[in-house]
Amino acid sequence: MTRITLALDAMGGDHAPTVVVKGAEIARERFPFVDFAFFGPEPQIQPLLAKAPKLAKVATVHHTDVVVAADARPSVALRAGRGSSMRLALDAVAAGQARAAVSAGNTGALMAMAKFALRTLPGIDRPAIASFFPTARGESVMLDLGANVICDARNLTQFAFLGEAFARTVLGLSRPSIGLLNVGAEDQKGREELKEAAQMLRDSQLNAQFLGFVEGDDIAAGRVDVIVTDGFTGNVALKTAEGTARLISGFLKESFRASLLARLGYVFARPAFGKFRERIDPRRYNGAIFLGLNGIAVKSHGGTDALGFANAIGVAVDMVVHGFLDRIRADLAHAPSSPQPAVAE
Amino acid sequence: MTRITLALDAMGGDHAPTVVVKGAEIARERFPFVDFAFFGPEPQIQPLLAKAPKLAKVATVHHTDVVVAADARPSVALRAGRGSSMRLALDAVAAGQARAAVSAGNTGALMAMAKFALRTLPGIDRPAIASFFPTARGESVMLDLGANVICDARNLTQFAFLGEAFARTVLGLSRPSIGLLNVGAEDQKGREELKEAAQMLRDSQLNAQFLGFVEGDDIAAGRVDVIVTDGFTGNVALKTAEGTARLISGFLKESFRASLLARLGYVFARPAFGKFRERIDPRRYNGAIFLGLNGIAVKSHGGTDALGFANAIGVAVDMVVHGFLDRIRADLAHAPSSPQPAVAE
Repeated sequence: MTRITLALDAMGGDHAPTVVVKGAEIARERFPFVDFAFFGPEPQIQPLLAKAPKLAKVATVHHTDVVVAADARPSVALRAGRGSSMRLALDAVAAGQARAAVSAGNTGALMAMAKFALRTLPGIDRPAIASFFPTARGESVMLDLGANVICDARNLTQFAFLGEAFARTVLGLSRPSIGLLNVGAEDQKGREELKEAAQMLRDSQLNAQFLGFVEGDDIAAGRVDVIVTDGFTGNVALKTAEGTARLISGFLKESFRASLLARLGYVFARPAFGKFRERIDPRRYNGAIFLGLNGIAVKSHGGTDALGFANAIGVAVDMVVHGFLDRIRADLAHAPSSPQPAVAE
Repeated sequence: MTRITLALDAMGGDHAPTVVVKGAEIARERFPFVDFAFFGPEPQIQPLLAKAPKLAKVATVHHTDVVVAADARPSVALRAGRGSSMRLALDAVAAGQARAAVSAGNTGALMAMAKFALRTLPGIDRPAIASFFPTARGESVMLDLGANVICDARNLTQFAFLGEAFARTVLGLSRPSIGLLNVGAEDQKGREELKEAAQMLRDSQLNAQFLGFVEGDDIAAGRVDVIVTDGFTGNVALKTAEGTARLISGFLKESFRASLLARLGYVFARPAFGKFRERIDPRRYNGAIFLGLNGIAVKSHGGTDALGFANAIGVAVDMVVHGFLDRIRADLAHAPSSPQPAVAE
């Protein structure tokens, strides 16, 4: 396999640069064909690489002292963060020196910079944030998860194209099904832009894969492979699901501690529980994907550990290896529903 | 305790009238001071009551053959359902013959009829659907869950008043905390109407209880007692949480079946598990409350069983017993943020 280079923002996230370097070390074992370009302060990164000699062999360090603060406003980050580790990682992708960028930094800043550095794909007005997660039937992808708090029918339709291409290339589904998140499955329900988007999808080449409206409980049920929604609703839905999973895990732990017998039961059930814990482990689904840009950018959760960061790297690698960008470009070229030229932002 | 009468739509829900009568039978044991007025076809209800002689003693049957279809459009139900079991139950509340109505029928039809029959409270432009659910800290209430897919700042502010009064009277919290559901806790985040509503709440008598914006994962964490949102977002969040709970319970069951040891572990842990199952049992939280009307109306889940329906009755009883209507009327009289007269719909 031809080698590919990934650009890593070494200073993004709560435990940077340690988690970034350790995550890359895990990813290196999984993906021996990847070279890693670290962007950040050399005096902090080199000592970490010295402890990971195998990684050091496939790593380069691109020094900068500028770091985007975790709470920086996107507009401020965009103006003041030109030489930052985050921005330089994205610039490397824009310049073709890296195939994808991964950062655990400030989401808003990363999206603003990614839009500026990579530009949106032809046929796409606004990029979206996507993520995949476990369902009763396998895995689904949902977007937008927060890039656009208000979306019109055209945005939603474009998100459907982006999500479908992602599910096809990265999740490996041959004809992913698509649903629009709404408050009822009936055609007359919900907001106007949803009814309009439904019509646009029925008129597009995605018609046969579009199953209409889905509801909140259809997300975890896996009723469709791609859930399309605006960034406000998607963000609330994703975080509500995460919070609910945490609550139930907490209740479960309490139950096992409630009595001696329950503790004993836990000991017996423990091996089987390993799989359960793995299935709902948020680190497994770490890596929010910025879709709709002329380049691949993946956002890791800021609080994740090395394993979680390695999984975010894995998402970026999958997108490169499976040629996501070429596929979505080809799809959009034939999309009758977004014939207008892209609006550069 | 003075006796109170509840009006029950005997024909609402998937398993009506059986579940309605059996649910009332369970509720009768819990609330011996309640009389039940059943609205529906006498030939179907009387044989069920004949099998529940204790319930029959505190029950009256008000015959009608008209039933609102589960899939009827609200506007159609409103026009054609004048003599329906659902409508007659609400009319009984409007006429003062019953203190609250409970129905497991079509939500949209029930809300449309309730607005028409009961009218909105002075100071409230639009009623909302609320429900309470388990959190890591106890119980919270969220609204709107689907009555209004688009809300302005004024609607959201009024929902905060309604939810706060509900948490105070029915959940028994002395000074319930309030949060507006958003995509970030920072002041500058999210949609315009949320920023405006936040300001209106800071200017109101709820100022000290208003904790600002909360995110999806704060719902299950119980960061606030009252979560205020529009009916679109609330509906998606509630159903997403339900779906996630179902998914994790399913994963858990699979784990326990995965090996002989795990099965054995389950046997030991079973008693402790009873409490876990009870905590996440959706029947326990059955009963969506219509808030903002001149009367009490509770919507049971259409697919629930007798125990779930009894819990929905319990919510209605609690609202009557704790004088919810008097309290919210007093609150609204002093609410500076909604000084305009109510818009009758």
